[in-house]
Amino acid sequence: MMIDFDRAVSLLRENDDFIILTHANPDGDTLGGGFALLAALRKLGKRARVECGEPLPEKYRFLEIEGDEFEGGFVVSVDIADTRLLSDTVREKYGERIDLAVDHHSTNRLYAKETYLEGDSAAVCEVVYLLIKALGAVIDGEIATRLYTGCSTDTGCFRYSNVTPRTHTIAAELIEAGARHAEVNVLMFETKKPGFLKLQSLCLSGMELHFSGKVSVFRITREMLAGCSCGDEDCDAIVALSRQIEGVLVGVTFKERTDGSIKVSLRTHEGADAAKICSAFGGGGHLRAAGCQFECPFEEAKKQVLAELEKYI
Amino acid sequence: MMIDFDRAVSLLRENDDFIILTHANPDGDTLGGGFALLAALRKLGKRARVECGEPLPEKYRFLEIEGDEFEGGFVVSVDIADTRLLSDTVREKYGERIDLAVDHHSTNRLYAKETYLEGDSAAVCEVVYLLIKALGAVIDGEIATRLYTGCSTDTGCFRYSNVTPRTHTIAAELIEAGARHAEVNVLMFETKKPGFLKLQSLCLSGMELHFSGKVSVFRITREMLAGCSCGDEDCDAIVALSRQIEGVLVGVTFKERTDGSIKVSLRTHEGADAAKICSAFGGGGHLRAAGCQFECPFEEAKKQVLAELEKYI
Repeated sequence: MMIDFDRAVSLLRENDDFIILTHANPDGDTLGGGFALLAALRKLGKRARVECGEPLPEKYRFLEIEGDEFEGGFVVSVDIADTRLLSDTVREKYGERIDLAVDHHSTNRLYAKETYLEGDSAAVCEVVYLLIKALGAVIDGEIATRLYTGCSTDTGCFRYSNVTPRTHTIAAELIEAGARHAEVNVLMFETKKPGFLKLQSLCLSGMELHFSGKVSVFRITREMLAGCSCGDEDCDAIVALSRQIEGVLVGVTFKERTDGSIKVSLRTHEGADAAKICSAFGGGGHLRAAGCQFECPFEEAKKQVLAELEKYI
Repeated sequence: MMIDFDRAVSLLRENDDFIILTHANPDGDTLGGGFALLAALRKLGKRARVECGEPLPEKYRFLEIEGDEFEGGFVVSVDIADTRLLSDTVREKYGERIDLAVDHHSTNRLYAKETYLEGDSAAVCEVVYLLIKALGAVIDGEIATRLYTGCSTDTGCFRYSNVTPRTHTIAAELIEAGARHAEVNVLMFETKKPGFLKLQSLCLSGMELHFSGKVSVFRITREMLAGCSCGDEDCDAIVALSRQIEGVLVGVTFKERTDGSIKVSLRTHEGADAAKICSAFGGGGHLRAAGCQFECPFEEAKKQVLAELEKYI
């Protein structure tokens, strides 16, 4: 059931012992929003913990806050459009009993008992910020830094078309509240490991252009990642790069997962709907950024995605 | 003479026939601020033109507005710390008769009759925005797009430590006023020519690390630029990259100019003052971004800069 803002605030205010779920392959927005919510609920005298089901990527460790231990609890998912995006262990434990979903994906599958969705928010952290403010929790530098991280990472640092005046207004308020914005951005965007630069070179030299240069195809194998001492968290920047080639309308990155399956990430410019294209393969996301997955070999997955893209290009 | 905000507004309100000067090697901030000011002054029934003295780089052409022709005029410089930064033709014509300097470089040499300086503004476009608002000119989408371009480009799209809450508040107001923010950012940050990616690879393979990896040195020759079909405007992203290597505190880029002289661009993280380091060689700029030049060969220039850096590292 979809609920309004006031109902979402009430649910957070009236409950206790919060289990906050982030999605698997966690990013700055799900972690920033999850841990900011945890810190804010604690300020209101409540107990809370974040469950991701996976170790946090090195670059996001600074967001982590140790959680409280308790039995039972009120389960809140943050930034999760579909329970399939939870890690296996978290899905098994909580997938069927999520009380509240706080999300900004218009493709949210309404798996939770109650869902507060702002489909036009650039980041779920915008939504979490407004909820925390309405709850009356003081937003200190630590909370502000976490919320800022989500706003910044989900917008490519305020670059993308999902940014609204509100995104900037919230960023201004978070910096005013003590968010360590420059430090976060150096960490998120300005720190390139020599190994990552090697991965980028490899990806660029293997880049394919299709449909007169309107579609770029990047491929990342486990072997490439291992050879460059890179991990999954290094792939986001390659995914972003796929759309940055002059003339490219749709950037497609095929990443091999450890289990051999393939994660496809689409990034589009105006004129192509990433979520719609990915939905043909059971995936989803946003207008400009979406994903889906395949269990078949790379060449077959590529063939299918290019065939689907041909309808739109 | 330094003047206050109200005096700057009065000078713009009470004069007519404005000659607006931008610096040589113009960037998004000097051009965005200059042309936004031109458009705003026209809305107030005044005549104005922008003089740069050089053709605009391709990527900034969308900012250009044809100027009015008139004799004499009130000369305003925008984003110019020193008349040495003017193109030769502009300096000869106007260098000695600049009526008003609007600037955000704390190193401004007070060469103008009157100077309105906001040293803690991330972009001169922040200052121009406030002046235009105070003048009462309606800020339409065209003016907003130009001002947004300056705010965005001078902050690496809101990434750098020069960003303040005010920068974000102004960005929010500009987007509200119709700034084509996403389009500007795609053009400024998200469009990489295949030739540029080649230049980047070349620069990375020639990168040197000094002082235990705390200083990166990049070199760009005319031959490299020609071989990659790149121009001077492509070098900014290499300069930005110089500071993005993990562990690097100071990134130094040595660019060969067409006349054989060398332009040095410094980018620093917290702990090193770029303007101070460059001032040892007669240069200047900001805390995190500054420049200077040399007339000697590259190896000699590098030796001098590294010797200076040794004092701080």
